[in-house]
Amino acid sequence: MAKERVFINAELPSGMRDYLPSEMITKQKVFDIIREVYENYGFVPLETPGVEKLEVLTGNDPNFNMNLFRTFVVRGPKNAELEEVDTDLALRFDLTVPLARFMAMHPELGKPFKRYQLAKVWRGEKAQAGRYREFSQFDADIIGTRSMLADTEIITVMYNVMRKIGFTNFVIKTNNRKILNGLAVCANFFEPQTKQEAVFRILDKLGKITEQEMVEELSKPPANQFDESKPELNKDDIDKIINFININGSGSSILTKAEKIIGQIPIGQQGISEMREIVENLTSIGIPEENWLIDLSVARGLGYYTGPVFETTLTDMPKIGSVYSGGRFDGLTNRFIPNSNIPGVGASVGVDRLFDAIDEMGLFVKQNTLTKVLVALFDDNLKITYLQLVNELRQRGINAEIYFDKEPLKAQLAYAAKKEIPYVIIIGSQEAENNTVTIRNMKTREQKTLDKNLVFDSILSEQ
Amino acid sequence: MAKERVFINAELPSGMRDYLPSEMITKQKVFDIIREVYENYGFVPLETPGVEKLEVLTGNDPNFNMNLFRTFVVRGPKNAELEEVDTDLALRFDLTVPLARFMAMHPELGKPFKRYQLAKVWRGEKAQAGRYREFSQFDADIIGTRSMLADTEIITVMYNVMRKIGFTNFVIKTNNRKILNGLAVCANFFEPQTKQEAVFRILDKLGKITEQEMVEELSKPPANQFDESKPELNKDDIDKIINFININGSGSSILTKAEKIIGQIPIGQQGISEMREIVENLTSIGIPEENWLIDLSVARGLGYYTGPVFETTLTDMPKIGSVYSGGRFDGLTNRFIPNSNIPGVGASVGVDRLFDAIDEMGLFVKQNTLTKVLVALFDDNLKITYLQLVNELRQRGINAEIYFDKEPLKAQLAYAAKKEIPYVIIIGSQEAENNTVTIRNMKTREQKTLDKNLVFDSILSEQ
Repeated sequence: MAKERVFINAELPSGMRDYLPSEMITKQKVFDIIREVYENYGFVPLETPGVEKLEVLTGNDPNFNMNLFRTFVVRGPKNAELEEVDTDLALRFDLTVPLARFMAMHPELGKPFKRYQLAKVWRGEKAQAGRYREFSQFDADIIGTRSMLADTEIITVMYNVMRKIGFTNFVIKTNNRKILNGLAVCANFFEPQTKQEAVFRILDKLGKITEQEMVEELSKPPANQFDESKPELNKDDIDKIINFININGSGSSILTKAEKIIGQIPIGQQGISEMREIVENLTSIGIPEENWLIDLSVARGLGYYTGPVFETTLTDMPKIGSVYSGGRFDGLTNRFIPNSNIPGVGASVGVDRLFDAIDEMGLFVKQNTLTKVLVALFDDNLKITYLQLVNELRQRGINAEIYFDKEPLKAQLAYAAKKEIPYVIIIGSQEAENNTVTIRNMKTREQKTLDKNLVFDSILSEQ
Repeated sequence: MAKERVFINAELPSGMRDYLPSEMITKQKVFDIIREVYENYGFVPLETPGVEKLEVLTGNDPNFNMNLFRTFVVRGPKNAELEEVDTDLALRFDLTVPLARFMAMHPELGKPFKRYQLAKVWRGEKAQAGRYREFSQFDADIIGTRSMLADTEIITVMYNVMRKIGFTNFVIKTNNRKILNGLAVCANFFEPQTKQEAVFRILDKLGKITEQEMVEELSKPPANQFDESKPELNKDDIDKIINFININGSGSSILTKAEKIIGQIPIGQQGISEMREIVENLTSIGIPEENWLIDLSVARGLGYYTGPVFETTLTDMPKIGSVYSGGRFDGLTNRFIPNSNIPGVGASVGVDRLFDAIDEMGLFVKQNTLTKVLVALFDDNLKITYLQLVNELRQRGINAEIYFDKEPLKAQLAYAAKKEIPYVIIIGSQEAENNTVTIRNMKTREQKTLDKNLVFDSILSEQ
């Protein structure tokens, strides 16, 4: 019992972070904006747990190779024995797979089903600058329709979220996995699946690597018999790929040029038609061309996409990568309900990356507090007066604090200055007698002694 | 590759749950209310990760006996090997210990520091009805002051949150661990610590067990040498305890009676003084007596409380237990910074219990959607007209959806009816020519054909 206590380092796990109040105040403003846009488009909120059954997450796929945080229930501190219960659980790595699990469990909800969800996800990757092992996603998905109206809607939602947050220099790059599958047939990397995935992963690197480096990666032979990262394409096929992804122009001219190359491949042609419909839709509602384009190099590595794919980059901050990505996935519930083939399309805000960008651009004024008024504890005998005053301010809808401790007024004003609280109210025996208050404007350092109600009204008129 | 796929059960982990949109819409309304109250009182938001270092959570305390979810990083599906990295991590079990870790890391923030946090916590307990293994807490804490003004503020915040949500029949039961420590000295269970904790745990059961059962539990001898759950008190000491916790009356009369018994014990006297100050403060700002009382039986089992403790029960639903609890904890950062003795006081909404109560009382009208208008896909040739119309509705701030699929109008109306979307707009070639729209009120089943702008204005006027 009288054992020496060893002190513990106050540390975060690597790759995880706190958001301080000054950051969270901005974050909540942005969350409120995103939520408002999602609700404006008819999405409803959903919440699923952070912990899921392991097989729900992996689909028991032997090729599943993401690093997960698995969880085990343990009683007590570090050296306690693992209990052999619930060893089949893990933290979710995204919000889409849990959504598929949810849809499989709730057929009664009907289709289409449009939900949004803001939540944490976890990935056990090696921590590095700008890559977190716990991060938030803010997703909107439309489940149960193959209509390109839904894909159009997702792009429109993305556009509106970005604009309402305050971004102007951004591009939603769009492509279609069906078009890329057409290219895969033409350039001989459609099969095996591992080869195709290797090529798409290399395509996704464009912007981070040069075209010359890409050509090299596409041509390299595997390092050994287990190396599936090198597709080893020949020069002709690589030329086809490079020519294809370099096609540019307006949306419809890109599609015309692409069609000439892959038009004979049925899956490719289907992708072209889908994109034509999206171009027509987006044009009709005036989504500006500077914020949206077709980029035939966008692949979005994740295996489950089957149609249009989207990613959003900030023109002035290309290094941050995509802050808002998504696409169409058909058949995500198939692992739960054989041949259910429920289609879906959605997008996910990469919240932490987005905040890095918001921070760098200074899109929001940093605030340390939401408090408007501090009531100073000037004379301890008037404590009840102060308590009643702060209560009255709050009831009037003014965010207010009372200073808790008997400290010199200077210290109390320093607290208000540090937190950037705009006003401090000081009441001495004189003011208490006259039912007035002295209000100090912390910016101008002006002090006025006024009738209490005048002060309330003046603060309210500023809000 | 052509391996048979085994289908996966779409299941939740035991003790975890989804919140459906109809539940989440209410939940968000309540969260918005709580956040508004917290901000009104000058609390600022904070976010800490769900995963913490194990020793941060347990304090390396050999007596720590909570069931935690520990986490391990694993690559791939079920049968993959555990990687020997990050085995010293676990999911947080509350938000207070991570707050202490945060405070130890951020001395620059100064004192007092008032933060709120809404987040998930995990406990590896056996799942049972009404007890979840993952649940949300919504905490507000004041760090860095010993002033009873802070404890008063926490009670006032709790009162306002409960009232603004719509509860009227609730009681915030308050006690003080210093008073209970005084009782512990008088009734000879102050030492050893394990005995004291056993008594407090039994006291916390009052309401769930009868007084007679409590007497029996207090008198029982340990089952064996390792059993620390039985304090084995003698009859005299048990009588003292029972008499003490049965003291009732108004706040100040309870304190007068309690003082007669424990007034000689300095720690008890200090508790009495603290409670006198809280009574005076709460009375001065008119917190009604029916919503707040002193209950000398409330102990709040958690080890870290050192002063006033609070719990909130619903008069009409005692079985739900406390929905909003807290107390004063001094020295929570001591495990990180020797002798730092940073004081704090706060309270935590037990979100899931609270929602069980809100649900049972029907405090909010259940909504399946936040959408006001569905634009039907009536004539596929007019798709662009519909897209432009739904876009216009949204830009005017009206939450609106477009139906995605070419289905009979009947099916589209059935979708609107099921989701309880109030209006459906139908445009045929006639309306398109005349620039009018047909609007159907889904409740009254009335249909009118009107000028488009009239329809917008009339929907907006309802919001």
